[in-house]
Amino acid sequence: MIVEILTIGDEILSGDILDTNKQYLSERAWSHGLSVEYHTGVRDEESRIADALTRAAERADVVLCTGGLGPTMDDFTIEVAAKTFGVPLVEDENALAYLVDLLQKRGRELSGNNRKQALIPQGGTAFVNEAGTAPGAYFPWRGKHFYFMPGVPREMKHLFEKFILPHVLERRPSALHYESIVLKTFGETEAALDRSIADLFRDRVNVGNVRAGFRVSFPEIFIKLSAWDEDARKAKADLENARAAVEERVGKFVYARGIDATMEGELVSRLKAAGKTCAFAESCTGGFIANKITNVSGAGDVFLGGVVSYDNQVKTGVLNVPPDVIADHGAVSAECAEAMVRGVQSAIGADFSAAVTGIAGPTGGTPDKPAGTVHVATLCDGELKNKAYYFPVPREMFKSVVAAVVFKRFLGRCGPR
Amino acid sequence: MIVEILTIGDEILSGDILDTNKQYLSERAWSHGLSVEYHTGVRDEESRIADALTRAAERADVVLCTGGLGPTMDDFTIEVAAKTFGVPLVEDENALAYLVDLLQKRGRELSGNNRKQALIPQGGTAFVNEAGTAPGAYFPWRGKHFYFMPGVPREMKHLFEKFILPHVLERRPSALHYESIVLKTFGETEAALDRSIADLFRDRVNVGNVRAGFRVSFPEIFIKLSAWDEDARKAKADLENARAAVEERVGKFVYARGIDATMEGELVSRLKAAGKTCAFAESCTGGFIANKITNVSGAGDVFLGGVVSYDNQVKTGVLNVPPDVIADHGAVSAECAEAMVRGVQSAIGADFSAAVTGIAGPTGGTPDKPAGTVHVATLCDGELKNKAYYFPVPREMFKSVVAAVVFKRFLGRCGPR
Repeated sequence: MIVEILTIGDEILSGDILDTNKQYLSERAWSHGLSVEYHTGVRDEESRIADALTRAAERADVVLCTGGLGPTMDDFTIEVAAKTFGVPLVEDENALAYLVDLLQKRGRELSGNNRKQALIPQGGTAFVNEAGTAPGAYFPWRGKHFYFMPGVPREMKHLFEKFILPHVLERRPSALHYESIVLKTFGETEAALDRSIADLFRDRVNVGNVRAGFRVSFPEIFIKLSAWDEDARKAKADLENARAAVEERVGKFVYARGIDATMEGELVSRLKAAGKTCAFAESCTGGFIANKITNVSGAGDVFLGGVVSYDNQVKTGVLNVPPDVIADHGAVSAECAEAMVRGVQSAIGADFSAAVTGIAGPTGGTPDKPAGTVHVATLCDGELKNKAYYFPVPREMFKSVVAAVVFKRFLGRCGPR
Repeated sequence: MIVEILTIGDEILSGDILDTNKQYLSERAWSHGLSVEYHTGVRDEESRIADALTRAAERADVVLCTGGLGPTMDDFTIEVAAKTFGVPLVEDENALAYLVDLLQKRGRELSGNNRKQALIPQGGTAFVNEAGTAPGAYFPWRGKHFYFMPGVPREMKHLFEKFILPHVLERRPSALHYESIVLKTFGETEAALDRSIADLFRDRVNVGNVRAGFRVSFPEIFIKLSAWDEDARKAKADLENARAAVEERVGKFVYARGIDATMEGELVSRLKAAGKTCAFAESCTGGFIANKITNVSGAGDVFLGGVVSYDNQVKTGVLNVPPDVIADHGAVSAECAEAMVRGVQSAIGADFSAAVTGIAGPTGGTPDKPAGTVHVATLCDGELKNKAYYFPVPREMFKSVVAAVVFKRFLGRCGPR
């Protein structure tokens, strides 16, 4: 099946925002054996949208459209689609009921602007959008399958995964089974991981028909293994063999399996299983580590709290770091990191405590302590580990790699997976 | 002049890499008054590339192509272009001399693969690529202007800025000047903002030729105003009038102007200007607010630190919230928020302190206090404000809207912009 991905929106064509939907949809479609052959983008203009839909019907089997489903005057993809398809717009009962209910919960009335979001081309199918207000829509035209999704990535992903991808796959003429697994790693470079496993896939040693690919999601590297076969069991077995072969080589860097796994999620569940609690004292990461772990629903079972000791007066006042330590060694020092971790341990009393102090940059570095320097001290069940690192990367990347160091260290103390 | 941007490459269509070139080229083209009307992407396949070039010649004046200029076997954009244009490939002397020289400097010989990079369609123009090996190329066909650039963003930008943009602008029949401004808002919905200003643009009241568009970047809404005119001063004046008209209606929701402005960046610079410091006590936001403000380089001038009091023992132990307050009213209560803000104020001593306590969800809610409930207490120069909100949105969105409430309240205390 040939797929065309069509982005509709002035904000994309003007370069105001980066279109990340095309990459997401392309990757997901290919991974199910659908051939993405065309990427198209047009502005919110009636004739352009109509032309793009008509051309797509000539050359693609499946057309995935994003954008132009919002409540405002410049959103009219569905109206133009209905005109192009030659059918009137009709109100979808389910979509409308969902909208009314959603707005009621927010204490708001249904406005005309919102009401138009419940309209779909007559004969089409609406998909209720539990991540927003604009429903998705399906319409079959000239023997081709047209899907409409909002441009907001979170809403697009929800509708695509829950309704649209299964809907497309049901319409696929022949089924080549596809199995994949993602191994999430931290602590080794892409080039080194590649060197460690390349021969397995070059020489086809215990990896069957499986393909391996890398994706960098700083500071992590994901290894994706993909297997296709007409026989579903064969694809599954090949994949499992390949996974085992890869993990035998680089397993110590693999912290979890599965595309949705995160270090913080893994940490929360493994701390919980181990019956341990944690706390953080953060200087240069400024709350990043606490924020990351509290993105996990249920983090409250294992995370007690933290102190963001950005200013030295917070280090001395709240964490009881002796002023002499800062005067003698500086706030960015192994001595200060140790005092901080002992301070947060006695203030909060978790089983596992960590403290980080460093220079996130770009400013604040010195020849002795350049931006990117960081001391990470952990105190796990009374055992201290204190080590310095150097990560000369932009500010937000710096925070994320420091958090990964802390999480990996805690994971190592939770026992085997 | 109508512009089409054409991306050529399997790695884009497969979703392996994110195409950032389109956004860059779109933004640059629009900012010079060129109308980017079409985004197109095709795989490295001869018939697809030929079709895309032919279609582009039918509908665009300027075609900016990226990708497929590398030295390997799967790079053949230029060959296909020459075939499509009906001319032979010829070696460009300057491009070849530059390549030979570059490779010599790297201690390498000219290979056949590299040599093919000096080929351009006969009658075209080569642009020497000082950022890589593949030159850029220009070819006029059917009265339209075709430009070819490598897909590597660094090389593309170099060639575009140094040669291609000036080359396009010289060929522009008349210069339509373009001016734009982005107003960043928080505190009102997109639909309501739209209702407040739609008549200005429908009835053309004091807004000249200006167009308005909305972009949701939760929890904020951006309003973009765009003006085009042959007279640069007229475009500027129209834009300024439209901005004033829009801000007269919805100015109280506008926290800053400019595409690069962020609430946290605005807050850091305005706290600095006001000579004020700040601190946070965070329960349900788990460090999000501290993390956000410390993403701003120089945040250390105004942000002293914070306490993440996730567990009640941190509220009582570190923030000195009286246990009775929690026992009588619960941790999610106005009373607890007030005790927290007074606690962080006395622990850290900033001019502006804030405390948040609530239920981020999806679990943890009760009929009385459903997930999404949050109390936000601020203490600014001794003045307490304490208010409850209800944001029934996913966890990470919940954190970001609560942070925005805190930042907006602090901004309101920094005095006028």
